[in-house]
Amino acid sequence: MANETWLPTLITKTPQEGFELAVKLSRMGVKSTQPDVEILKKLRPEYANSADGLTAASQVIALNYQTISTANGYWR
Amino acid sequence: MANETWLPTLITKTPQEGFELAVKLSRMGVKSTQPDVEILKKLRPEYANSADGLTAASQVIALNYQTISTANGYWR
Amino acid sequence: MANETWLPTLITKTPQEGFELAVKLSRMGVKSTQPDVEILKKLRPEYANSADGLTAASQVIALNYQTISTANGYWR
Amino acid sequence: MANETWLPTLITKTPQEGFELAVKLSRMGVKSTQPDVEILKKLRPEYANSADGLTAASQVIALNYQTISTANGYWR
Amino acid sequence: MANETWLPTLITKTPQEGFELAVKLSRMGVKSTQPDVEILKKLRPEYANSADGLTAASQVIALNYQTISTANGYWR
Amino acid sequence: MANETWLPTLITKTPQEGFELAVKLSRMGVKSTQPDVEILKKLRPEYANSADGLTAASQVIALNYQTISTANGYWR
Repeated sequence: MANETWLPTLITKTPQEGFELAVKLSRMGVKSTQPDVEILKKLRPEYANSADGLTAASQVIALNYQTISTANGYWR
Repeated sequence: MANETWLPTLITKTPQEGFELAVKLSRMGVKSTQPDVEILKKLRPEYANSADGLTAASQVIALNYQTISTANGYWR
Repeated sequence: MANETWLPTLITKTPQEGFELAVKLSRMGVKSTQPDVEILKKLRPEYANSADGLTAASQVIALNYQTISTANGYWR
Repeated sequence: MANETWLPTLITKTPQEGFELAVKLSRMGVKSTQPDVEILKKLRPEYANSADGLTAASQVIALNYQTISTANGYWR
Repeated sequence: MANETWLPTLITKTPQEGFELAVKLSRMGVKSTQPDVEILKKLRPEYANSADGLTAASQVIALNYQTISTANGYWR
Repeated sequence: MANETWLPTLITKTPQEGFELAVKLSRMGVKSTQPDVEILKKLRPEYANSADGLTAASQVIALNYQTISTANGYWR
């Protein structure tokens, strides 16, 4: 992860692209803790099929979207 | 999701419409993690009938409402 | 919910009225996920008699109070 | 609660008094959800003797302290 | 706690000292809810040996570090 | 930890390096609560192989990334 550029900028063209970047940051937060893609694949059903897990994922996205929205001046 | 525009702007006319947009963002955070609508329908009773699940949902909405309120200058 | 105005403004006269509005926003976050008042009544003892549930409720109120305090310039 | 003034201002003299106000706000968030003091007393051991419950309480205080610190210009 | 000064200022010399203050605030949040030091000592292994407990502790520190970083102008 | 400098600055060259610093802060939050490296190693599988644990870790990173992004003016 350290060797490839995956986050060149926080600036996006639209609010929606910003939301997609927030989703990406949330995933990279997971990946930085568990880099093994095989394990991540195995865990996916555990939260993607759990109401609590999905709400928690949405919460992390909301936090990252706060950061990205501020960075972009709220696309005003 | 990437192909259709569902978030053209964070600007709303009133504080209440802003709250409704926060609810929408919270749902899209869930949907971006679990895009399968059938699974989402099946999971709905799991949190919509659980006090903890509803409080957690309200927390995500509160975070997204922080973003939207700032974007709108708090409708002052 | 969409048809009646329940949030005309984030501005309140005092810090305490602002706190009451934060409580209201937290409840509306729950209601927007579960609009059935009968189910909400049934769930109430589940969190109102649970230490964890009450702390979680207080957390959502704290988040909404951040928003409302900023909107009101902290009533300075 | 609505009838007595318990939060006249967010301004405090020192950072430490601000922290104490954050503790108070966190408790009022609980009380606004469960006003029955007898039930609250019964629940107290449930979180005051649980590591998870205490960490959660500290989290709510941290959120309210963000609000109060901003209101006071960080006492600089 | 009310009688001794433990938080005279939010200002620190370095980002790292600010982090240490955030750790302290997080602990004082716990202590304000459970002042009995003997009980706190007994609970310590409960979260210091639990992955979830440690992540939750780190989250409270992160929230308090947001406050302290802002107070210090990010030590720029 | 108090004796060595591990956080000289919040400033990073790029958004991605800032994210890596947010990961580091999140780990130091854990370490400040449980400094015993052997115990931390034993606990690692507990959260690195749990969907909930990984989402919680990503949430702490998101909070710390808010701090670091602000410190860096969002690298604009």
